[in-house]
Amino acid sequence: MVSIVPRNLKLTLSYMGASYRGWQVQPAVATVQGELAAAIERITGERCLPQGSGRTDAGVHALAQVASWQTESSIPPENLLKALNSHLPPTIRVLAVEPVAADFHARHSARSKTYLYRIHRGTVCPPFLADQVWHHPYPLDEETIRAAAAEVIGEHDFTSFAAVDAEKREAGEPSPVRQITRSEWRREGEESIYEVSGSGFLHHMVRNLVGTLVLAGKGSLQVTDIAKIIAARSRAANPGATAPACGLYLVKVEY
Amino acid sequence: MVSIVPRNLKLTLSYMGASYRGWQVQPAVATVQGELAAAIERITGERCLPQGSGRTDAGVHALAQVASWQTESSIPPENLLKALNSHLPPTIRVLAVEPVAADFHARHSARSKTYLYRIHRGTVCPPFLADQVWHHPYPLDEETIRAAAAEVIGEHDFTSFAAVDAEKREAGEPSPVRQITRSEWRREGEESIYEVSGSGFLHHMVRNLVGTLVLAGKGSLQVTDIAKIIAARSRAANPGATAPACGLYLVKVEY
Repeated sequence: MVSIVPRNLKLTLSYMGASYRGWQVQPAVATVQGELAAAIERITGERCLPQGSGRTDAGVHALAQVASWQTESSIPPENLLKALNSHLPPTIRVLAVEPVAADFHARHSARSKTYLYRIHRGTVCPPFLADQVWHHPYPLDEETIRAAAAEVIGEHDFTSFAAVDAEKREAGEPSPVRQITRSEWRREGEESIYEVSGSGFLHHMVRNLVGTLVLAGKGSLQVTDIAKIIAARSRAANPGATAPACGLYLVKVEY
Repeated sequence: MVSIVPRNLKLTLSYMGASYRGWQVQPAVATVQGELAAAIERITGERCLPQGSGRTDAGVHALAQVASWQTESSIPPENLLKALNSHLPPTIRVLAVEPVAADFHARHSARSKTYLYRIHRGTVCPPFLADQVWHHPYPLDEETIRAAAAEVIGEHDFTSFAAVDAEKREAGEPSPVRQITRSEWRREGEESIYEVSGSGFLHHMVRNLVGTLVLAGKGSLQVTDIAKIIAARSRAANPGATAPACGLYLVKVEY
């Protein structure tokens, strides 16, 4: 009898967050992980739960989320890619399927992640972007925001930028310390784009960074307040609101 | 007593067709005209039915649909624009509100319309475009399509490109003769774009033109077949399918 050695596969996925109640599988609602598991089962007959690089909240988009999954199926990766895309809804697309080493895990092996946040600044937000940007047509001092954004670069305890529900912190990541390597605010036509890379992000961290930076842009916070807010290590010390989910995109995960 | 002279207003609108069962008001389903009438009533207290430049089918988008409507309200146009956008769903946006002469009518006064049709040609269609393009990743000979597209320019009886349900032809437009002034197929990155302008369009005419041009691109029709199909004046003589609604955009209406 031939013993089957399971293959470990890495999937790269893009999805439109507005159509799903987030990444994580939940009963009776559409989630990205749930749709992916169902498509894999229809194709291979295997019940499985592909592991993502991290959860994305309801409404949050992905340009390139990564998931990994062990399979006994011998379907070649390129055929699996086509089969997955024909079984998944068109708002979830598999961009790549690659065999990886047995010890690769989409979450544990991740070294860095990049997110971007899109804010539409025009008076009228195009209807085609309704679920894909935060519409914020009010004045912002973008020079101040750029300076404030740079203040978060480095290794810090980001508790002040994390959701209060600390129990939602990911298992195996008890520390609220993260290394931010890039934090840039730029203008592209009618949009303000915030792009941030780091070793990892706490729950709601990018959306809270955006909410706080927007306060700086409105003049309600000074650039020097950012370091004070970080030092306070308390969400209550941060007056910034959590920016809406619909503007947030997971751009890439590096391994 | 002051007698109020009603003002005639021209509205320019953009909408995401996937969210609506087309333009025309219908009971118990969301339509663009229905949402617009409801917003006007909430703002002015007036019950009305704004007239569009023409109906768009379920799923068809508009970059700049035009509607007209007579009102006794004295709200300035710029305030009306803001109020409409705050009452309408974010997938319908009013781009302009302008006072026009009393005899202006969005449909009867229209001199020409332009539509475009977006076909995504990549192997994988981005999930953000799922409702905004027709995904057609198969080979097409675009040189042949460009030549075939030029064949429809001029004044022709377009019955072969009209929906069979001739009773849906718009009131006051009994003739199936239309003047096409522009019919161009071009490539933009991963998309093939068809742009067509004319004096008016029969029901399903642009989608049927696209379906027929795609057959030419597949090699199932010759460029010279286009004139024969037009001359036959019968939908049955046209083997082209009706292209999906989701790729179609009303771009502009000229008066």
